Amino acid sequence: MTLFRRLLGEALRAQRMERGLTLREVSADARVSLGYISEIERGQKEASSELLASLCGALEMPLSLLLHNVSQAAAIEEQLLTVPATTLPVRTGADVVASAA
Amino acid sequence: MTLFRRLLGEALRAQRMERGLTLREVSADARVSLGYISEIERGQKEASSELLASLCGALEMPLSLLLHNVSQAAAIEEQLLTVPATTLPVRTGADVVASAA
Repeated sequence: MTLFRRLLGEALRAQRMERGLTLREVSADARVSLGYISEIERGQKEASSELLASLCGALEMPLSLLLHNVSQAAAIEEQLLTVPATTLPVRTGADVVASAA
Repeated sequence: MTLFRRLLGEALRAQRMERGLTLREVSADARVSLGYISEIERGQKEASSELLASLCGALEMPLSLLLHNVSQAAAIEEQLLTVPATTLPVRTGADVVASAA
């Protein structure tokens, strides 16, 4: 199942990395505990709307852009999930040997 | 402040209306109480990621599209919030009289 909090966490983390910010810096700026932000980034906790607004502020990212990025990630995942399993290329040990030869 | 749950609620409601579904029908299909869905639509409750997935299923709407719509609504609101108040056209009683003349 495509879970919003997992994709959201990945998008938040990607933006933090792009900005070259540490969890500690975002934590101080957004006034949210470091552990909590870390759990959100790993998709383990849901972020409230107020927290999301704080994080967007600390990451200097409008909420619209964050949601756009999450929407794109969801679209990619949905496409992968709707492709019948039989059409997905399966890489076996034999392939690895063949490609190495 | 642009709050995710308010825009999300509006987007969910818009989709339900477009599908011509009642709260009762979505409630039965998503297996979520009618009152809870109603609170989510009004932006009064945060929806968990699992609930969001259920609602998307009941509304026959991929999560990516829902988030795209919310992102668009957020972008419009952000633009409105960043326009300096002095540049917004103010319609006065005199304008109304002038345009009617």
